[in-house]
Amino acid sequence: MSFEEKMLETKHIFKGKVIDLDVETVLLPDGNKATREIIRHHGAVGIICITAANKIVLVKQWRQPLRKSTLEIPAGKIEPSEKDPLKTVKRELNEEVRLSAKKFEFVTSFYTSPGFADEKMFLYRAHELSAVENSLPRDDGEFLNILELSPEQVDEEIKKGTICDSKTLMAIWYWKMNRIKE
Amino acid sequence: MSFEEKMLETKHIFKGKVIDLDVETVLLPDGNKATREIIRHHGAVGIICITAANKIVLVKQWRQPLRKSTLEIPAGKIEPSEKDPLKTVKRELNEEVRLSAKKFEFVTSFYTSPGFADEKMFLYRAHELSAVENSLPRDDGEFLNILELSPEQVDEEIKKGTICDSKTLMAIWYWKMNRIKE
Repeated sequence: MSFEEKMLETKHIFKGKVIDLDVETVLLPDGNKATREIIRHHGAVGIICITAANKIVLVKQWRQPLRKSTLEIPAGKIEPSEKDPLKTVKRELNEEVRLSAKKFEFVTSFYTSPGFADEKMFLYRAHELSAVENSLPRDDGEFLNILELSPEQVDEEIKKGTICDSKTLMAIWYWKMNRIKE
Repeated sequence: MSFEEKMLETKHIFKGKVIDLDVETVLLPDGNKATREIIRHHGAVGIICITAANKIVLVKQWRQPLRKSTLEIPAGKIEPSEKDPLKTVKRELNEEVRLSAKKFEFVTSFYTSPGFADEKMFLYRAHELSAVENSLPRDDGEFLNILELSPEQVDEEIKKGTICDSKTLMAIWYWKMNRIKE
């Protein structure tokens, strides 16, 4: 059984720069009605960068929703013109951490919060890193520091709560699983 | 450097059952202003249940934001009265998959999408599972099927895109890492 909900009506509540908000009235499998609050998002990418010295490249930035600074893997929103997430990966790698890579490996994709949002995240690993020659300009209002952390330093930052988001934890777990395999 | 953004003004755009939406005007480190679209959410839990037959317990349900059915680990929103996420874990374990557990292990916690949302997810593993004697009523409008999948079946569902959200992938990766260790 799919328990499909049939959309009866959509109210467009908000149209923003990053997200839109719709409230949908749906018909449930039992014939009753319910409302669903839905965030529309254009999708995003996250990039796992492991240096030759076996450190992970992270970005320190202020996250206003959390009222604190976090350490996250390089990431960013897919622009409407970017049909292939790999295009976003290459752009963000340059914009955020000033790196380019010779090889890209698709790791996985996932919805970040399927209960209320359609945001899809594409996770890639960038191999054979080098510093870019021509830096792309960062977004307006984007301020960040670039850090490289060892596995031990990563564990400390998780304990402190500075590393605290799903894509970055997944990147770290992926890195760990690959170290176990190697 | 923290690059802290100072909040100048908050507009409450929407107050819903699951999420609220605020638009904040902030002062950037360079003295300019910017707006931040912020989803407020009360937090949630996800529960890793591995059966004695080495299968993972998943819930099939319709996700209106994605316009499809998904397979996810048992999960749910933290109610305002639930101060300890473990309380939510025990309730959702009963409500969603009709199980109780003798032991609970905290795995990790994470923000699902720190760029625009403050939703925090607490991931637990439930050990020594048994069927509940007294089932709690499910939420209105909540329809679901309970499934148990082997590691091979899980890999297939990931390929098909039915298993497709961060908490469930993390649960599966955690399970995999523990199988490697054992």
